[in-house]
Amino acid sequence: TGTVNLAVIPGDGIGQEVTPEALKVLEAVDVPVKFQQTHYALGAENYLATGDVLPTSVLAEIRQHDAILLGAVGGKPNDPNLPPGILERGLLLKLRFEFDHYVNLRPSRLFPGTPSPLVEPGDVDFVVVREGTEGPYTGNGGALRVGTPAEVATEVSVNTAFGVERVVRDAFARAERRPRKHLTLVHKTNVLVHAGSVWWRIFETVAAEHPDVTTDYMHIDAAMIHMTVNPSRFDVIVTDNLFGDIITDLAAAITGGIGLAASGNVNPDRTAPSMFEPVHGSAPDIAGQQKADPTAAILSASLLLDHLGYADASAAVEAAVLADLAERTPGTTRRTPEVGDSIAARL
Amino acid sequence: TGTVNLAVIPGDGIGQEVTPEALKVLEAVDVPVKFQQTHYALGAENYLATGDVLPTSVLAEIRQHDAILLGAVGGKPNDPNLPPGILERGLLLKLRFEFDHYVNLRPSRLFPGTPSPLVEPGDVDFVVVREGTEGPYTGNGGALRVGTPAEVATEVSVNTAFGVERVVRDAFARAERRPRKHLTLVHKTNVLVHAGSVWWRIFETVAAEHPDVTTDYMHIDAAMIHMTVNPSRFDVIVTDNLFGDIITDLAAAITGGIGLAASGNVNPDRTAPSMFEPVHGSAPDIAGQQKADPTAAILSASLLLDHLGYADASAAVEAAVLADLAERTPGTTRRTPEVGDSIAARL
Ligand SMILES: CC(C)[C@H](C(=O)O)[C@@H](O)C(=O)O
Ligand SMILES: CC(C)[C@H](C(=O)O)[C@@H](O)C(=O)O
Repeated sequence: TGTVNLAVIPGDGIGQEVTPEALKVLEAVDVPVKFQQTHYALGAENYLATGDVLPTSVLAEIRQHDAILLGAVGGKPNDPNLPPGILERGLLLKLRFEFDHYVNLRPSRLFPGTPSPLVEPGDVDFVVVREGTEGPYTGNGGALRVGTPAEVATEVSVNTAFGVERVVRDAFARAERRPRKHLTLVHKTNVLVHAGSVWWRIFETVAAEHPDVTTDYMHIDAAMIHMTVNPSRFDVIVTDNLFGDIITDLAAAITGGIGLAASGNVNPDRTAPSMFEPVHGSAPDIAGQQKADPTAAILSASLLLDHLGYADASAAVEAAVLADLAERTPGTTRRTPEVGDSIAARL
Repeated sequence: TGTVNLAVIPGDGIGQEVTPEALKVLEAVDVPVKFQQTHYALGAENYLATGDVLPTSVLAEIRQHDAILLGAVGGKPNDPNLPPGILERGLLLKLRFEFDHYVNLRPSRLFPGTPSPLVEPGDVDFVVVREGTEGPYTGNGGALRVGTPAEVATEVSVNTAFGVERVVRDAFARAERRPRKHLTLVHKTNVLVHAGSVWWRIFETVAAEHPDVTTDYMHIDAAMIHMTVNPSRFDVIVTDNLFGDIITDLAAAITGGIGLAASGNVNPDRTAPSMFEPVHGSAPDIAGQQKADPTAAILSASLLLDHLGYADASAAVEAAVLADLAERTPGTTRRTPEVGDSIAARL
């Protein structure tokens, strides 16, 4: 049996509680490899203790791995020692950008028996392909005369044909592999005309090469309405980094909550390790109490297995999660390790 | 009795159908002024016929009015003769920017009897104060090597202390006038660090001057979850132009749909006329059939009355809408003028 070199970044808060459960499941699943774990103590706690966010040498080390499993990163809100963005830009986004995670994959399914806040959610099963390396997330921009009445601050959304085409092609390929073969572009072409234009043109060009995939377009604001009124209409959604951030939290909310939402930061060219993480944050308010639901982390491990080519093992983890979800009693809560045990026991 | 000089821009599609109903209500309501209307044929139809979006002379003429009532602007999707953004940037946003509509006011209430797509919406009654003259809406940005594989397109979000402070102050003043006196800042300070920093700092500074207003902060992605899981928690929300665009469509969706969502593009300094319009668009798919619900346009007229100082008349229109809503039979639909007649008859 071969070895998968796995970099593990539990991070902060509930990240440290849910990650062991995802690892438990990776150990339990029947897969013809051994996971060789290296743990990295990165995140708010580490930064406050050492002043380091992500040293270059550590970045270089992580790069040598086959995949990354991340819990959650982030300290207490408004901690004066944690300027906003320092961990997000310096660690999480740094990894996404350095390792060229241009496909930020976020599946949304309403699992049978899971309650939705919607009256009539219908049969929700879609995946958002969020661009991961461009848009308003590049860190371009700056500020002048900070703290004075003459302050001006800019944020620059950068969109390239190179970056848009590769993620749009990935989304079409994914749509083609799904039964409904439908792809929706979400943007705001009527206001962000330059960025919208490159997204729209490339989407249309690639669509012409995929006559078997039906397509439509929706402004991000209109997408809010469709997502709450008729989310089952979606199959695959491709969108920009910021719109993808927003729409996937809404998608998580309508399909049973952020406790179930998994994600993969994928480098489809495999020039660097892909990274798998729950959509949720470190949740300092409930941290340290083993109250967090590890399901999103476990489903992220399932995405990791699929990415590494172990489709059967990935499906087995998903099936175990489904079985566990079906037996949850609304109103009761289990401790984090109990959920992990229950899912692992089914494998 | 005095005269209110009202510029009326019915626009396109259902804009032409709902605007007469809002005017009908303005005629019917008991108010000690006469509305002197000047109609302007602007929008997609006019552009396709004349090639003009908004001639400078027309803009100057509209500026002489006391207020503007707008229906909706926009042609058929993907009309090759209507490049994306041409009307949005050239007409709608042009008016908002030229007339310094820095407070884009969007109230959301779940009226008694109106169905929500949420299982447990609770008692929803909040107002979004969306910044209207900055952020990613400025039109800053551009593109290089368009149509080539080396294309790069940028969109620049511009945020000034001047622009942020005035809208934040307006939001605090509004929060102070409401029973719950709570204000939520929505942004994405952990990624958009420069823009986020000026918003955050000014919000904190103005908060210190309003100890009677309680405050909190939420990232735009987290706001998606709160809006679907517990929308009754919101009282006043202040946010940037783009986040406000997105969150108000979600707010409309959860409070009975875009057919009820009103808005005011307000210039609180009254250096130019404010503009009132439904949040919905021109809906070419249902245009010409008198099927559109004019309630959002009528509630926008109510906001107009309030802005002009006729608080009682404004409240009377809202009460008439509420009474009409309470008597709607789910599953039945009335023609656009029937709804207008029914509301006007109650005044
Ligand atoms: C923490 C933050 C930087 C991140 C993002 O905005 O991408 C998170 O919200 C997510 O969706 O993974
Ligand atoms: C039509 C469009 C330019 C506009 C906006 O984005 O502001 C609309 O969506 C709105 O919310 O009024």
